[in-house]
Amino acid sequence: MDLVVVLFPEFETLDAFGPVEIFGKLEEISKIYFVSMRGGPIFSSQQVPVATEDLHHFPLEPGYILLIPGGAGTRKEICNEEFLSEIRKLTIQAQFVLSVCTGSLLLAMTGLLDSKKATTNKRVYNWVIHQAQDVKWIKRARWVKDGNIYTSSGVSAGMDMALGFIADNFGIERAGNISKGIEYIWNSDCDDDIFSELYQ
Amino acid sequence: MDLVVVLFPEFETLDAFGPVEIFGKLEEISKIYFVSMRGGPIFSSQQVPVATEDLHHFPLEPGYILLIPGGAGTRKEICNEEFLSEIRKLTIQAQFVLSVCTGSLLLAMTGLLDSKKATTNKRVYNWVIHQAQDVKWIKRARWVKDGNIYTSSGVSAGMDMALGFIADNFGIERAGNISKGIEYIWNSDCDDDIFSELYQ
Repeated sequence: MDLVVVLFPEFETLDAFGPVEIFGKLEEISKIYFVSMRGGPIFSSQQVPVATEDLHHFPLEPGYILLIPGGAGTRKEICNEEFLSEIRKLTIQAQFVLSVCTGSLLLAMTGLLDSKKATTNKRVYNWVIHQAQDVKWIKRARWVKDGNIYTSSGVSAGMDMALGFIADNFGIERAGNISKGIEYIWNSDCDDDIFSELYQ
Repeated sequence: MDLVVVLFPEFETLDAFGPVEIFGKLEEISKIYFVSMRGGPIFSSQQVPVATEDLHHFPLEPGYILLIPGGAGTRKEICNEEFLSEIRKLTIQAQFVLSVCTGSLLLAMTGLLDSKKATTNKRVYNWVIHQAQDVKWIKRARWVKDGNIYTSSGVSAGMDMALGFIADNFGIERAGNISKGIEYIWNSDCDDDIFSELYQ
Protein backbone atom coordinates (compact mmCIF):
# COMPACT_ATOMS: atom_id res chain seq x y z
CA MET A 1 0.00 0.00 0.00
CA ASP A 2 1.23 3.51 -0.86
CA LEU A 3 0.96 6.76 1.08
CA VAL A 4 0.41 9.94 -0.95
CA VAL A 5 1.14 13.24 0.82
CA VAL A 6 -0.25 16.30 -0.97
CA LEU A 7 1.78 19.44 -0.25
CA PHE A 8 1.29 23.16 -0.96
CA PRO A 9 3.27 26.29 -0.02
CA GLU A 10 3.28 26.99 3.72
CA PHE A 11 1.97 23.62 4.80
CA GLU A 12 2.63 22.95 8.49
CA THR A 13 5.77 20.81 8.89
CA LEU A 14 4.58 18.44 11.61
CA ASP A 15 1.10 18.00 10.06
CA ALA A 16 2.83 16.13 7.25
CA PHE A 17 5.95 14.64 8.82
CA GLY A 18 4.46 13.48 12.13
CA PRO A 19 2.18 10.98 10.34
CA VAL A 20 4.92 10.25 7.75
CA GLU A 21 7.26 9.23 10.59
CA ILE A 22 4.62 6.79 11.84
CA PHE A 23 3.52 5.39 8.47
CA GLY A 24 7.20 4.98 7.63
CA LYS A 25 7.38 2.38 10.41
CA LEU A 26 4.48 0.35 8.99
CA GLU A 27 5.80 -2.54 6.91
CA GLU A 28 2.65 -2.58 4.77
CA ILE A 29 3.54 0.87 3.34
CA SER A 30 5.79 0.30 0.34
CA LYS A 31 6.21 3.81 -1.06
CA ILE A 32 5.55 7.33 0.24
CA TYR A 33 4.93 9.96 -2.46
CA PHE A 34 5.11 13.73 -1.97
CA VAL A 35 3.07 15.54 -4.61
CA SER A 36 2.09 19.15 -5.36
CA MET A 37 0.32 21.16 -8.09
CA ARG A 38 3.42 21.84 -10.21
CA GLY A 39 6.06 19.57 -8.65
CA GLY A 40 9.46 20.94 -7.59
CA PRO A 41 10.43 22.31 -4.19
CA ILE A 42 7.63 23.19 -1.79
CA PHE A 43 8.52 25.09 1.39
CA SER A 44 6.66 24.42 4.63
CA SER A 45 5.76 27.29 7.00
CA GLN A 46 8.90 26.31 8.92
CA GLN A 47 11.11 26.64 5.80
CA VAL A 48 11.55 22.91 5.06
CA PRO A 49 12.22 22.50 1.29
CA VAL A 50 10.59 19.29 0.09
CA ALA A 51 11.22 17.95 -3.41
CA THR A 52 7.76 17.05 -4.78
CA GLU A 53 6.39 15.36 -7.88
CA ASP A 54 3.74 16.98 -10.12
CA LEU A 55 0.44 15.37 -9.17
CA HIS A 56 -0.82 15.71 -12.77
CA HIS A 57 1.96 13.54 -14.18
CA PHE A 58 1.79 11.11 -11.37
CA PRO A 59 0.73 7.55 -12.20
CA LEU A 60 -1.53 6.86 -9.27
CA GLU A 61 -3.04 3.44 -8.82
CA PRO A 62 -6.30 3.81 -6.86
CA GLY A 63 -6.29 2.39 -3.34
CA TYR A 64 -3.59 4.48 -1.66
CA ILE A 65 -3.76 6.31 1.67
CA LEU A 66 -4.02 10.08 1.14
CA LEU A 67 -2.60 12.50 3.73
CA ILE A 68 -3.64 16.17 3.63
CA PRO A 69 -1.76 18.49 6.03
CA GLY A 70 -2.98 21.92 7.07
CA GLY A 71 -1.08 25.09 7.90
CA ALA A 72 -1.01 28.81 7.17
CA GLY A 73 -1.08 28.08 3.41
CA THR A 74 -4.63 26.72 3.63
CA ARG A 75 -5.99 30.30 3.85
CA LYS A 76 -4.87 30.80 0.25
CA GLU A 77 -5.54 27.27 -1.00
CA ILE A 78 -9.22 27.20 0.04
CA CYS A 79 -9.74 29.80 -2.73
CA ASN A 80 -7.70 27.80 -5.29
CA GLU A 81 -10.41 25.98 -7.26
CA GLU A 82 -7.86 24.10 -9.39
CA PHE A 83 -6.10 22.70 -6.30
CA LEU A 84 -9.39 21.78 -4.58
CA SER A 85 -10.46 19.95 -7.73
CA GLU A 86 -7.23 17.90 -7.64
CA ILE A 87 -7.71 17.13 -3.93
CA ARG A 88 -11.23 15.95 -4.78
CA LYS A 89 -9.87 13.59 -7.46
CA LEU A 90 -7.13 12.29 -5.15
CA THR A 91 -9.69 11.72 -2.37
CA ILE A 92 -12.14 9.82 -4.57
CA GLN A 93 -9.41 7.39 -5.67
CA ALA A 94 -8.00 6.84 -2.17
CA GLN A 95 -8.83 3.86 0.00
CA PHE A 96 -8.36 5.98 3.12
CA VAL A 97 -8.04 9.74 3.59
CA LEU A 98 -6.39 11.38 6.60
CA SER A 99 -6.31 15.15 7.10
CA VAL A 100 -4.52 17.02 9.87
CA CYS A 101 -5.38 20.40 11.40
CA THR A 102 -6.79 22.84 8.79
CA GLY A 103 -6.20 20.16 6.16
CA SER A 104 -9.77 19.19 7.14
CA LEU A 105 -10.95 22.47 5.64
CA LEU A 106 -9.24 21.74 2.30
CA LEU A 107 -11.06 18.42 2.29
CA ALA A 108 -14.33 20.09 3.35
CA MET A 109 -14.10 22.59 0.48
CA THR A 110 -14.27 19.68 -2.00
CA GLY A 111 -17.75 18.84 -0.66
CA LEU A 112 -16.62 15.32 0.24
CA LEU A 113 -17.00 15.99 3.99
CA ASP A 114 -20.64 17.16 3.69
CA SER A 115 -22.84 15.47 6.34
CA LYS A 116 -19.79 13.67 7.70
CA LYS A 117 -18.33 13.96 11.20
CA ALA A 118 -14.94 15.69 11.34
CA THR A 119 -12.66 17.77 13.54
CA THR A 120 -9.92 20.34 13.00
CA ASN A 121 -7.48 22.74 14.70
CA LYS A 122 -8.89 24.20 17.92
CA ARG A 123 -7.24 27.61 17.86
CA VAL A 124 -8.91 28.51 14.55
CA TYR A 125 -11.94 26.25 15.07
CA ASN A 126 -14.54 28.99 14.68
CA TRP A 127 -12.99 30.20 11.43
CA VAL A 128 -12.94 26.67 9.98
CA ILE A 129 -16.54 25.77 10.83
CA HIS A 130 -17.73 29.12 9.42
CA GLN A 131 -16.13 28.25 6.06
CA ALA A 132 -17.72 24.80 5.78
CA GLN A 133 -21.11 24.65 7.43
CA ASP A 134 -22.35 21.37 5.93
CA VAL A 135 -19.83 19.30 7.87
CA LYS A 136 -20.81 17.78 11.24
CA TRP A 137 -17.89 19.37 13.10
CA ILE A 138 -17.00 17.88 16.48
CA LYS A 139 -15.09 20.25 18.73
CA ARG A 140 -14.01 17.93 21.52
CA ALA A 141 -12.00 15.27 19.68
CA ARG A 142 -8.31 14.50 19.21
CA TRP A 143 -9.37 12.85 15.96
CA VAL A 144 -12.58 11.67 14.28
CA LYS A 145 -13.26 8.70 11.98
CA ASP A 146 -16.20 8.71 9.59
CA GLY A 147 -16.15 5.83 7.12
CA ASN A 148 -12.80 5.87 5.35
CA ILE A 149 -12.04 9.49 6.33
CA TYR A 150 -9.99 10.41 9.41
CA THR A 151 -9.60 14.06 10.47
CA SER A 152 -7.46 15.28 13.35
CA SER A 153 -7.18 18.27 15.61
CA GLY A 154 -4.17 20.64 15.37
CA VAL A 155 -0.65 19.75 14.24
CA SER A 156 0.67 17.12 16.68
CA ALA A 157 -2.76 15.44 16.89
CA GLY A 158 -1.98 14.04 13.45
CA MET A 159 0.48 11.63 15.05
CA ASP A 160 -2.14 10.35 17.48
CA MET A 161 -4.58 9.93 14.59
CA ALA A 162 -2.03 8.05 12.47
CA LEU A 163 -1.49 5.63 15.36
CA GLY A 164 -5.29 5.39 15.81
CA PHE A 165 -5.64 4.56 12.12
CA ILE A 166 -3.02 1.81 12.46
CA ALA A 167 -4.78 0.47 15.57
CA ASP A 168 -8.10 0.31 13.68
CA ASN A 169 -6.69 -1.33 10.58
CA PHE A 170 -3.66 -3.33 11.73
CA GLY A 171 -4.31 -3.89 15.45
CA ILE A 172 -3.62 -1.89 18.61
CA GLU A 173 -0.45 -3.87 19.34
CA ARG A 174 1.14 -2.66 16.09
CA ALA A 175 0.25 0.96 16.96
CA GLY A 176 1.64 0.54 20.47
CA ASN A 177 4.88 -0.97 19.18
CA ILE A 178 5.39 1.87 16.70
CA SER A 179 4.81 4.53 19.37
CA LYS A 180 7.24 2.79 21.73
CA GLY A 181 9.83 2.46 18.96
CA ILE A 182 9.83 6.21 18.39
CA GLU A 183 9.59 6.88 22.17
CA TYR A 184 6.31 8.71 21.65
CA ILE A 185 3.73 8.91 24.43
CA TRP A 186 0.64 8.14 22.36
CA ASN A 187 -2.58 9.93 23.35
CA SER A 188 -4.68 6.96 22.33
CA ASP A 189 -8.16 8.19 23.33
CA CYS A 190 -9.65 10.01 20.33
CA ASP A 191 -12.25 11.70 22.58
CA ASP A 192 -9.71 13.11 25.04
CA ASP A 193 -8.90 16.62 23.79
CA ILE A 194 -7.56 19.07 26.37
CA PHE A 195 -7.08 21.74 23.71
CA SER A 196 -10.78 21.99 22.84
CA GLU A 197 -11.38 23.86 26.09
CA LEU A 198 -8.29 26.05 25.77
CA TYR A 199 -9.61 28.11 22.89
CA GLN A 200 -13.19 29.49 22.96
CA MET B 1 19.49 33.72 15.25
CA ASP B 2 19.70 30.91 12.68
CA LEU B 3 19.01 27.19 12.97
CA VAL B 4 21.26 24.85 10.98
CA VAL B 5 20.00 21.28 10.47
CA VAL B 6 22.65 18.86 9.25
CA LEU B 7 21.19 15.98 7.24
CA PHE B 8 22.55 12.70 5.87
CA PRO B 9 20.96 9.75 4.00
CA GLU B 10 18.47 7.83 6.14
CA PHE B 11 18.19 10.39 8.89
CA GLU B 12 15.04 9.88 11.01
CA THR B 13 12.25 12.18 9.82
CA LEU B 14 10.85 13.27 13.19
CA ASP B 15 14.33 13.70 14.76
CA ALA B 16 14.78 16.65 12.41
CA PHE B 17 11.27 17.94 11.76
CA GLY B 18 9.87 17.70 15.30
CA PRO B 19 12.37 20.29 16.59
CA VAL B 20 12.12 22.25 13.29
CA GLU B 21 8.34 22.56 13.83
CA ILE B 22 9.00 24.01 17.28
CA PHE B 23 11.90 26.32 16.38
CA GLY B 24 9.83 27.53 13.41
CA LYS B 25 7.41 29.02 15.96
CA LEU B 26 10.14 30.96 17.76
CA GLU B 27 10.23 34.54 16.49
CA GLU B 28 13.95 34.84 17.33
CA ILE B 29 14.79 32.25 14.63
CA SER B 30 15.19 34.13 11.37
CA LYS B 31 16.36 31.41 8.99
CA ILE B 32 16.43 27.61 9.05
CA TYR B 33 19.12 25.99 6.87
CA PHE B 34 19.20 22.36 5.77
CA VAL B 35 22.73 21.28 4.89
CA SER B 36 24.46 18.05 3.88
CA MET B 37 27.89 16.86 2.69
CA ARG B 38 27.26 17.38 -1.04
CA GLY B 39 24.00 19.35 -1.11
CA GLY B 40 21.05 18.21 -3.25
CA PRO B 41 18.21 15.92 -2.24
CA ILE B 42 18.66 13.88 0.92
CA PHE B 43 16.11 11.15 1.69
CA SER B 44 15.07 10.41 5.26
CA SER B 45 14.48 6.81 6.42
CA GLN B 46 10.79 7.51 5.80
CA GLN B 47 11.43 8.57 2.16
CA VAL B 48 11.10 12.36 2.68
CA PRO B 49 13.17 14.11 -0.05
CA VAL B 50 14.69 17.28 1.42
CA ALA B 51 16.49 19.82 -0.80
CA THR B 52 19.75 20.61 1.03
CA GLU B 53 22.63 23.04 0.58
CA ASP B 54 26.27 21.91 0.46
CA LEU B 55 27.73 22.60 3.91
CA HIS B 56 31.17 23.32 2.37
CA HIS B 57 29.86 26.24 0.30
CA PHE B 58 27.66 27.51 3.02
CA PRO B 59 28.46 30.96 4.45
CA LEU B 60 27.96 30.26 8.13
CA GLU B 61 28.24 33.08 10.62
CA PRO B 62 29.22 31.58 13.99
CA GLY B 63 26.57 31.72 16.69
CA TYR B 64 23.81 29.57 15.17
CA ILE B 65 21.88 26.72 16.76
CA LEU B 66 22.97 23.36 15.32
CA LEU B 67 20.53 20.44 15.15
CA ILE B 68 21.86 16.90 14.56
CA PRO B 69 19.22 14.21 14.01
CA GLY B 70 19.85 10.50 14.33
CA GLY B 71 18.39 7.55 12.46
CA ALA B 72 19.38 4.36 10.69
CA GLY B 73 21.91 6.30 8.60
CA THR B 74 24.09 6.98 11.66
CA ARG B 75 25.40 3.39 11.51
CA LYS B 76 27.14 4.29 8.27
CA GLU B 77 28.01 7.91 9.15
CA ILE B 78 29.89 7.07 12.37
CA CYS B 79 32.55 5.54 10.08
CA ASN B 80 32.58 8.57 7.73
CA GLU B 81 35.60 10.53 8.96
CA GLU B 82 35.01 13.38 6.51
CA PHE B 83 31.43 13.88 7.72
CA LEU B 84 32.43 13.66 11.41
CA SER B 85 35.10 16.29 10.77
CA GLU B 86 32.47 18.63 9.31
CA ILE B 87 30.12 18.01 12.25
CA ARG B 88 33.01 18.89 14.55
CA LYS B 89 33.56 22.19 12.74
CA LEU B 90 29.85 23.00 12.74
CA THR B 91 29.65 22.21 16.46
CA ILE B 92 32.62 24.38 17.42
CA GLN B 93 31.12 27.41 15.65
CA ALA B 94 27.63 26.93 17.08
CA GLN B 95 26.26 28.83 20.06
CA PHE B 96 24.07 25.87 20.98
CA VAL B 97 24.06 22.26 19.78
CA LEU B 98 21.06 19.95 19.98
CA SER B 99 21.19 16.29 18.98
CA VAL B 100 18.29 13.86 18.85
CA CYS B 101 18.32 10.07 19.28
CA THR B 102 21.46 8.50 17.76
CA GLY B 103 22.49 11.98 16.60
CA SER B 104 24.21 12.02 20.01
CA LEU B 105 26.54 9.32 18.75
CA LEU B 106 27.54 11.36 15.70
CA LEU B 107 28.36 14.20 18.09
CA ALA B 108 30.18 11.82 20.46
CA MET B 109 32.36 10.50 17.61
CA THR B 110 33.80 14.02 17.14
CA GLY B 111 35.18 13.83 20.70
CA LEU B 112 33.26 16.95 21.71
CA LEU B 113 31.03 15.01 24.11
CA ASP B 114 33.97 13.50 26.04
CA SER B 115 33.46 13.87 29.81
CA LYS B 116 30.09 15.50 29.19
CA LYS B 117 26.67 14.26 30.30
CA ALA B 118 24.43 13.09 27.46
CA THR B 119 21.60 10.74 26.57
CA THR B 120 20.41 8.93 23.46
CA ASN B 121 17.85 6.49 22.04
CA LYS B 122 16.82 3.83 24.57
CA ARG B 123 16.18 0.91 22.20
CA VAL B 124 19.78 0.98 20.96
CA TYR B 125 21.24 2.45 24.15
CA ASN B 126 23.74 -0.33 24.76
CA TRP B 127 25.08 -0.14 21.20
CA VAL B 128 25.54 3.63 21.45
CA ILE B 129 27.36 3.66 24.78
CA HIS B 130 29.64 0.86 23.58
CA GLN B 131 30.74 3.05 20.63
CA ALA B 132 31.57 6.12 22.74
CA GLN B 133 32.80 5.21 26.18
CA ASP B 134 34.24 8.60 27.20
CA VAL B 135 30.81 10.21 27.41
CA LYS B 136 28.94 10.34 30.74
CA TRP B 137 25.83 8.64 29.36
CA ILE B 138 22.65 9.01 31.39
CA LYS B 139 20.08 6.33 30.69
CA ARG B 140 17.05 7.68 32.54
CA ALA B 141 16.52 11.07 30.88
CA ARG B 142 14.14 12.47 28.29
CA TRP B 143 16.89 14.96 27.52
CA VAL B 144 20.17 16.17 29.06
CA LYS B 145 21.79 19.61 29.08
CA ASP B 146 25.54 19.98 29.61
CA GLY B 147 26.78 23.51 28.97
CA ASN B 148 25.65 24.56 25.52
CA ILE B 149 24.95 20.98 24.39
CA TYR B 150 21.52 19.37 24.61
CA THR B 151 21.04 15.67 23.77
CA SER B 152 17.70 13.87 23.70
CA SER B 153 16.37 10.37 23.93
CA GLY B 154 14.76 8.69 20.89
CA VAL B 155 12.91 10.39 18.03
CA SER B 156 9.92 12.20 19.58
CA ALA B 157 11.97 13.19 22.66
CA GLY B 158 13.58 15.78 20.40
CA MET B 159 10.37 17.83 20.54
CA ASP B 160 10.37 17.81 24.33
CA MET B 161 14.05 18.83 24.33
CA ALA B 162 13.44 21.67 21.87
CA LEU B 163 10.71 23.01 24.15
CA GLY B 164 13.04 22.55 27.14
CA PHE B 165 15.73 24.52 25.32
CA ILE B 166 13.24 27.33 24.66
CA ALA B 167 12.13 27.26 28.31
CA ASP B 168 15.77 27.56 29.46
CA ASN B 169 16.69 30.36 27.09
CA PHE B 170 13.46 32.25 26.39
CA GLY B 171 11.25 31.42 29.37
CA ILE B 172 8.86 28.61 30.22
CA GLU B 173 5.84 30.65 29.18
CA ARG B 174 7.15 30.85 25.61
CA ALA B 175 7.69 27.07 25.55
CA GLY B 176 4.20 26.48 26.96
CA ASN B 177 2.60 28.76 24.41
CA ILE B 178 4.36 27.05 21.51
CA SER B 179 3.30 23.58 22.71
CA LYS B 180 -0.31 24.74 23.11
CA GLY B 181 -0.25 26.37 19.66
CA ILE B 182 0.68 23.06 18.03
CA GLU B 183 -1.66 21.14 20.38
CA TYR B 184 1.28 19.14 21.69
CA ILE B 185 1.19 17.64 25.18
CA TRP B 186 4.71 18.60 26.28
CA ASN B 187 6.56 16.14 28.52
CA SER B 188 8.33 18.95 30.33
CA ASP B 189 10.27 16.97 32.96
CA CYS B 190 13.66 16.09 31.47
CA ASP B 191 14.18 13.36 34.10
CA ASP B 192 10.89 11.58 33.43
CA ASP B 193 11.67 8.88 30.88
CA ILE B 194 9.31 5.92 30.76
CA PHE B 195 11.19 4.42 27.82
CA SER B 196 14.46 3.92 29.73
CA GLU B 197 12.88 0.99 31.58
CA LEU B 198 11.23 -0.48 28.50
CA TYR B 199 14.45 -1.63 26.87
CA GLN B 200 17.10 -3.43 28.91
